[in-house]
Amino acid sequence: MIIVVKKGSTENQIKSFCDYIEKTGLKANIWVGVTTTVIGLIGDDSLIDERLLLSFDIVESVKRVTEPYKKVNRKYHPDDTIVTIPSKIGDVKIGEGYFVIMAGPCSVESEEQILTIAKEVKKAGATMLRGGAYKPRTSPYAFQGLGTNGIDLLLKAKKETGLPIVTEIMDVRCLDGFNEVDLIQVGARNMQNFELLKELGKSKKPILLKRGLANTIEEWLMSAEYILSKGNDNIILCERGIRTFETFTRNTLDISAIPAIKELSHLPIIVDPSHATGVARFVKPISMAAVAVGADGLIIEVHNDPVKALCDGAQSLKPEAFAAVVKDLKDMLKLKGKN
Amino acid sequence: MIIVVKKGSTENQIKSFCDYIEKTGLKANIWVGVTTTVIGLIGDDSLIDERLLLSFDIVESVKRVTEPYKKVNRKYHPDDTIVTIPSKIGDVKIGEGYFVIMAGPCSVESEEQILTIAKEVKKAGATMLRGGAYKPRTSPYAFQGLGTNGIDLLLKAKKETGLPIVTEIMDVRCLDGFNEVDLIQVGARNMQNFELLKELGKSKKPILLKRGLANTIEEWLMSAEYILSKGNDNIILCERGIRTFETFTRNTLDISAIPAIKELSHLPIIVDPSHATGVARFVKPISMAAVAVGADGLIIEVHNDPVKALCDGAQSLKPEAFAAVVKDLKDMLKLKGKN
Amino acid sequence: MIIVVKKGSTENQIKSFCDYIEKTGLKANIWVGVTTTVIGLIGDDSLIDERLLLSFDIVESVKRVTEPYKKVNRKYHPDDTIVTIPSKIGDVKIGEGYFVIMAGPCSVESEEQILTIAKEVKKAGATMLRGGAYKPRTSPYAFQGLGTNGIDLLLKAKKETGLPIVTEIMDVRCLDGFNEVDLIQVGARNMQNFELLKELGKSKKPILLKRGLANTIEEWLMSAEYILSKGNDNIILCERGIRTFETFTRNTLDISAIPAIKELSHLPIIVDPSHATGVARFVKPISMAAVAVGADGLIIEVHNDPVKALCDGAQSLKPEAFAAVVKDLKDMLKLKGKN
Amino acid sequence: MIIVVKKGSTENQIKSFCDYIEKTGLKANIWVGVTTTVIGLIGDDSLIDERLLLSFDIVESVKRVTEPYKKVNRKYHPDDTIVTIPSKIGDVKIGEGYFVIMAGPCSVESEEQILTIAKEVKKAGATMLRGGAYKPRTSPYAFQGLGTNGIDLLLKAKKETGLPIVTEIMDVRCLDGFNEVDLIQVGARNMQNFELLKELGKSKKPILLKRGLANTIEEWLMSAEYILSKGNDNIILCERGIRTFETFTRNTLDISAIPAIKELSHLPIIVDPSHATGVARFVKPISMAAVAVGADGLIIEVHNDPVKALCDGAQSLKPEAFAAVVKDLKDMLKLKGKN
Repeated sequence: MIIVVKKGSTENQIKSFCDYIEKTGLKANIWVGVTTTVIGLIGDDSLIDERLLLSFDIVESVKRVTEPYKKVNRKYHPDDTIVTIPSKIGDVKIGEGYFVIMAGPCSVESEEQILTIAKEVKKAGATMLRGGAYKPRTSPYAFQGLGTNGIDLLLKAKKETGLPIVTEIMDVRCLDGFNEVDLIQVGARNMQNFELLKELGKSKKPILLKRGLANTIEEWLMSAEYILSKGNDNIILCERGIRTFETFTRNTLDISAIPAIKELSHLPIIVDPSHATGVARFVKPISMAAVAVGADGLIIEVHNDPVKALCDGAQSLKPEAFAAVVKDLKDMLKLKGKN
Repeated sequence: MIIVVKKGSTENQIKSFCDYIEKTGLKANIWVGVTTTVIGLIGDDSLIDERLLLSFDIVESVKRVTEPYKKVNRKYHPDDTIVTIPSKIGDVKIGEGYFVIMAGPCSVESEEQILTIAKEVKKAGATMLRGGAYKPRTSPYAFQGLGTNGIDLLLKAKKETGLPIVTEIMDVRCLDGFNEVDLIQVGARNMQNFELLKELGKSKKPILLKRGLANTIEEWLMSAEYILSKGNDNIILCERGIRTFETFTRNTLDISAIPAIKELSHLPIIVDPSHATGVARFVKPISMAAVAVGADGLIIEVHNDPVKALCDGAQSLKPEAFAAVVKDLKDMLKLKGKN
Repeated sequence: MIIVVKKGSTENQIKSFCDYIEKTGLKANIWVGVTTTVIGLIGDDSLIDERLLLSFDIVESVKRVTEPYKKVNRKYHPDDTIVTIPSKIGDVKIGEGYFVIMAGPCSVESEEQILTIAKEVKKAGATMLRGGAYKPRTSPYAFQGLGTNGIDLLLKAKKETGLPIVTEIMDVRCLDGFNEVDLIQVGARNMQNFELLKELGKSKKPILLKRGLANTIEEWLMSAEYILSKGNDNIILCERGIRTFETFTRNTLDISAIPAIKELSHLPIIVDPSHATGVARFVKPISMAAVAVGADGLIIEVHNDPVKALCDGAQSLKPEAFAAVVKDLKDMLKLKGKN
Repeated sequence: MIIVVKKGSTENQIKSFCDYIEKTGLKANIWVGVTTTVIGLIGDDSLIDERLLLSFDIVESVKRVTEPYKKVNRKYHPDDTIVTIPSKIGDVKIGEGYFVIMAGPCSVESEEQILTIAKEVKKAGATMLRGGAYKPRTSPYAFQGLGTNGIDLLLKAKKETGLPIVTEIMDVRCLDGFNEVDLIQVGARNMQNFELLKELGKSKKPILLKRGLANTIEEWLMSAEYILSKGNDNIILCERGIRTFETFTRNTLDISAIPAIKELSHLPIIVDPSHATGVARFVKPISMAAVAVGADGLIIEVHNDPVKALCDGAQSLKPEAFAAVVKDLKDMLKLKGKN
């Protein structure tokens, strides 16, 4: 960490600041330039709060030289993490060199619905089944999901098709009910629900960590660090669009976040074109772009009757349309040497 | 709700859409213009999901005519809500016509610290004591708060000074520990933690609901609606800045949100200048602006030694500086006829 | 246009509002619902200002049913526009079914520099040469470009290589100096320099219209409408990233804008991965994504010595790296059936 | 400027980088830490482009230690700038200690209109008259202003009332027509129209520089630096809201920008509550907040018949409402010791 000292600071002030620093276990190295004095902190400064340093009278600005995340940092763990989801029809591997396609309805609505869609998406080429049992809804009057019944129905669909399942957790108290869930999703609104992240870090379950609507790439990696720091390294990141001034699409997919994450971290990253755009007819081109840019997979909303869906009908594909997307993806995946 | 029908839609399609609408209990009124057909939904359409309607092939766009929130809506509850916080040194009233000043440290650090600050802010004119026991921190390696011990220390400070206390809840499982807390804060990151909101709605505790970093005024009111719809109408809103491209300040205070909320809702609204700006020397001018624009109160970070604060030192005022802010506020409050 | 009438408005007020509307040449159709009255405007309402209507006391909200742009609207011009840039080494066609690669330095610096790069990018597969003669720089102390000399050097490079040239105009007074320029670029900062757009509309020159940093897709199309409404339909749009809270990349590429523009308009759209990311090593993956999502071309910064470039070195590729990008693009273009 | 060197860089690479730096006239000071090497540039580094330095292979990141603006920087010019607008009814002073109220219609529409409004706003307490002659409109089909006739009408109103006038320039070619205009406004869309800024810098006219929709405080000050660096120091800044995700108001007023500008620069700053909110009924509370936060003035849209206004009716006050705003402002100005 580098600290720029305000002009006019006295030697005594600087000394007393450095004393404070050294009490934290770091070393402070003073560099006096002609017009500016700079102090460099030496040691593991990931525990130091920049905003705290800014409260010292002599500090003009603070610059972090090293990233605040460690366990998710590619610098300290250069090899790509591959998350393996066991399955009786063939384990699903997620990470560099592999490509996963998760598909299914926004929310689980009935046994018939989830079984029908599960079979359809499997036939079309999906390797995992998604479906919401607990649904975060802006309105308290909107359908909130089937809860534990929803999970039971997903497990039935899994039993019938062999597809591993991914579903969202919203309440830390429900964690026990996710024992048989293959991949636990943390939604955008919970990306900084730190108590939930800590509990998930203590479990060994694979976690799908979606990016928050207004969160930077660094904050996202720090949330992954919460999970990893507790011992769970089965983490997959999911870019699903950020909130900007543009309202034509539901969110703005930050496509550059994929190469950015690949550079900064060893964790796999997938894309959610359904939530990113909110428009079913944009799912295909955005899916193609996700493969092209280097993503490790997709999570796509598919509904057999979007018109009757209890949520997010506007962004769901019909199974035929989903099959057409997967077909086009295959050629591009071949080009990229993924499978 | 008004639905614009796509050009080229057949009468049959429109009829079948209207049949669907009428099954939900609403009436559909078709208006055929020269170039455009529009369908108006009559009845309580707050239960209808706009995004679902968009998935019908014939729907070009949907416009809500009435707000999706009801219980927090001033249209249906024109009188201002006044939240009363009982206190042995005089009840604190929050809402139109009153002005509350909450002050205290970012986090509770020790008995000596919280007692000292509590006395200082009381002397300076604060009517409530704030202090974090559970702290949401971007980094898992940062100080996470004293937890239940922190609440105990706040209660000691309350006992000694008489100031009612406000502190943040982060985990629904800790709710029992908040029994003696006077005002429970829901932080920006939890504004859409819907399971937490539902539980708080079932309690009768006054709730301070901060606006999320990337949440619209409508979403914020919908989160308040979650609490109110479960039966708890002791809600105070808190504008604390939104995330924008500008990085000079920590967040961008949306000052227009105060008159907007006053117009749309009957709930009280206060301002957090410390988090909005992240800069201690801007707390005074922003506090003055908050009074001038019509806010019902302030929540300000005060620390007796910002330099040694375990979090957010950069935005905390020293007690002398806080006293100076309150002094200047008094004249402006007189001007506004508040007390 | 649909106008929602405020509750409590009298019949007289509504009548007087409709009288006002009919004076503008439109018809007003009143639809009285049970709880809400709605007025539909019939006729060409693209000339009516929504914000003006909002100033009437009885108006609660206004919803546009048809897009405010007409000549750039695909609804009224379903066939794709193909812009042709004549060239002695083979005309360059830009639009659906074709793919253009423009490349060259951020700014023209010297004859040797531009000739060297022109030959390199031609060899690698570029079909047009880009280079800045007039440079918009945030700082008045930064290099502002060679001006007319820069254009002369570009023309020399064109003469030598046959590559048509694209360069930015910043000042309407310089338009005469762009007579031999093949494609005139309007930069992001000038997207709403309406006087410039009007003059370009009167010329017949092909125009490359970049999206503004904070402009919506609709505003962007309205700027194209400025040019088209004056008679010039040789317009190519360029998505180059928008400004958001994320600072890891220079801007946030709005990849969904490409399918959106393809749906809303008949105009060609290309992508600028260099400005969108500001990071040379992200240019390749983003270029691949641009092809995959359906863009009609790319404009890429290439410099033979990025380190000595007078501007934007961080985002410029060396010629070898550019050649590698083009090589990978070729396979993907084949897959997409583009040439 | 401080440069963090990438791990693994060789001594030779660092030496060759420093040689490059020293050729620019700066000194390079190498500080070798235990884990990180940092290079400090000594001298006037405002001419060095950070993005260029980032293109060197050994550079990990760059941090500017001093602001890139000089002439507008309070550090080098601690005294407040007071801009004086001569007037036969008493010079108008703008800057710290004074408070200016500019008012008038969005656009000049007729002689009767502008004379009526000028007299009304003068009577109510305005000290300058605003009115648009050239109007930047998103749509080419919207009213574009009366042009030179509009300026003539403003001059008539000035002659009759004595109020100095402020009006917007959109085209550098029209500058001669602004000879008798007292204060030339640069609109948000032209904040980075650098050629226009340069010409205005050569004139001696007072300039009102509005902040761009998506521009940072630093970029805004750099645009002021463009004007000042050419010799014109009669600059007033105007905060008029930035573009964010919130759409309830037209823009989001960045109220913290006022204390920020006061700290960073010596230039006066005023607030435009009409454009910031786009809602006439929010103009009063936001105006009060502007005074409270320390702004040096306001520019407010007033129309005698907002309903018939040719632009921006929604945000214009009627004269009575404007008079009520000014009345309330007076008490607050007294409190702040302004006149």
